[in-house]
Amino acid sequence: MKTVGYAAHSSEANMVPYHFERRELRSNDVAIEILYSGVCHSDLHTVNGDWGPQPYPLVPGHEIVGVVQSVGADVTQYKVGDQVAVGCMVDSCQECDQCHNHEEQYCREGMTGTYGFPDRISGETTQGGYSKHIVVREEFVLRIPEGMDLSKSAPILCAGITTYSPLRTWGVKEGSRVGVIGLGGLGHMAVKLAVAMGADVTVISRSTKKETEAKALGAKGILASTDEEAMTAAANAFDLIIDTVPTAHDINAYTPLLDVDGSLVIVGQVGPTGELNSMPMIFGRRRVAGSLIGGIAETQEVLDFCAKHNIYPECEMIQMDQINEAFKRLEQGEMAHRFVIDMSSLDVA
Amino acid sequence: MKTVGYAAHSSEANMVPYHFERRELRSNDVAIEILYSGVCHSDLHTVNGDWGPQPYPLVPGHEIVGVVQSVGADVTQYKVGDQVAVGCMVDSCQECDQCHNHEEQYCREGMTGTYGFPDRISGETTQGGYSKHIVVREEFVLRIPEGMDLSKSAPILCAGITTYSPLRTWGVKEGSRVGVIGLGGLGHMAVKLAVAMGADVTVISRSTKKETEAKALGAKGILASTDEEAMTAAANAFDLIIDTVPTAHDINAYTPLLDVDGSLVIVGQVGPTGELNSMPMIFGRRRVAGSLIGGIAETQEVLDFCAKHNIYPECEMIQMDQINEAFKRLEQGEMAHRFVIDMSSLDVA
Repeated sequence: MKTVGYAAHSSEANMVPYHFERRELRSNDVAIEILYSGVCHSDLHTVNGDWGPQPYPLVPGHEIVGVVQSVGADVTQYKVGDQVAVGCMVDSCQECDQCHNHEEQYCREGMTGTYGFPDRISGETTQGGYSKHIVVREEFVLRIPEGMDLSKSAPILCAGITTYSPLRTWGVKEGSRVGVIGLGGLGHMAVKLAVAMGADVTVISRSTKKETEAKALGAKGILASTDEEAMTAAANAFDLIIDTVPTAHDINAYTPLLDVDGSLVIVGQVGPTGELNSMPMIFGRRRVAGSLIGGIAETQEVLDFCAKHNIYPECEMIQMDQINEAFKRLEQGEMAHRFVIDMSSLDVA
Repeated sequence: MKTVGYAAHSSEANMVPYHFERRELRSNDVAIEILYSGVCHSDLHTVNGDWGPQPYPLVPGHEIVGVVQSVGADVTQYKVGDQVAVGCMVDSCQECDQCHNHEEQYCREGMTGTYGFPDRISGETTQGGYSKHIVVREEFVLRIPEGMDLSKSAPILCAGITTYSPLRTWGVKEGSRVGVIGLGGLGHMAVKLAVAMGADVTVISRSTKKETEAKALGAKGILASTDEEAMTAAANAFDLIIDTVPTAHDINAYTPLLDVDGSLVIVGQVGPTGELNSMPMIFGRRRVAGSLIGGIAETQEVLDFCAKHNIYPECEMIQMDQINEAFKRLEQGEMAHRFVIDMSSLDVA
């Protein structure tokens, strides 16, 4: 199937229109016309080669929302016209303990990422959502609940599940004391989701500049990490801290904020994270962990959860040809939450 | 009550005999004649001032075994002649959630350490086990199970509980895959305890030099951290790793050895622990935690567990006047496991 998208041809160049072929439908495949595609900070990292060399040309995008265009002969869950979504993975072995446990993101053979990964059957490089169409095996297609606003749902597929999964894994419930470090794409979703779970949520940020916004999202306020007195007073104040900061930073400033047995879960920065001081960890059995997106079943769960609680990411809609400018704004930290590309702005011709 | 011990008078000086007074018995106090006192690496750190300035003169020692000499009027659990023990704490508030939850080591008001801490009532500095007698409130006295060899039991009070507690907290059971980094005082106890819990235990050490010893302790073998091939092959191999290394070291070499949701628990090094890399943590929801000794109930549990399974630390008995030499050997890493001071070697006169 012929399609078109925007691809990076190297780590240096701007993304440009790129005509390419999607595979012909296998019997268990779903072909999707993409309507909206979220722009994730990791798209930027990947395209820039920050996480290693990439198989250019590369079409990024793993927050995908669209409509089923056709289905393979054996597809049973979806039919033409269904509103669907695709997130960060498009395949896994489906046979290991992790896959059986609905944790395909930790598949023993490695999950197949939505872009830049070799397809498990053909070996061709997967290409992402900055395009008009995508073909994905049925098991990795999500359903957008009826009545959801498609134009605002895309970021749930990465920013949403990435924060929902640790909130669930660490058992957040009514009254849990949750801190969220950072208030960008991931952080603002973490706040909305934790608030909807009944948690007592505080945003942890360098200053109280975003206090109004934090409260509008449902948080009870902001703890300023530069305010030593406030930080000392907040010792032991959290059961769980979701750390969404996408760059290296000092986590030792935050671990004393955890109560005994509390956990700080890193979902932002991937790589070196500064020196770890074991002192506050030992003197409170505190924990530091990482968490990667979520399984397919849990991704469906967060979509359903957002539909039920009327939760949407804060989206700024852009046209496809504004993507390079959007990347620049992302890089400069000038984007508050999430860009979403309106794919109707890209001509197939 | 007059007694004598060995005290450090500064961070530089050798320990020397020190005559001092133990408090007169309060109604809930137990006076203990100390028979054996273990020598913990943290005694060395404390006396040297590595963990901050100390209230010299200071009598170290928090692995204490002895016999009840007298009891206060309200003491109900112990009587003269009972074989008892004292560990790392001698008091806590007894009223907070942590104390009520039998986690006195995380008391909201701070536990009172066995030496170098202000007594909660009189404010005088607590003095430890390198002495002939100690007076401790009943709630912080442990019972040595009948039939246990007193001369080999002292290190259970710190090395034992410090490793037993995380093994229990992280749910080690039959078939759990446990790694133990380091094979010193804490490490060799971690191996013995985890083996007795039915775990599949591997020692992780720089070389395979101690393989025979590891196997004698019940481990299935040694994983050499300098053997890149073996380390790669051991990815995802452990549910829990107990890290007993008492100095700063690179924990990123070990986190990939954890399976999905596995935890590395630091019980050795207190303080800076090198740069943390979040990559293996995110791509496996792996965790790094700290753990501090254990509560009083759990300390009694490990004593009972050791009695039941005939587990003893490997002890090298020394005389009181050999303590400075023993510290030197500890400092130089020349001590395989645990020194225990035979307190009968110290004259009261």
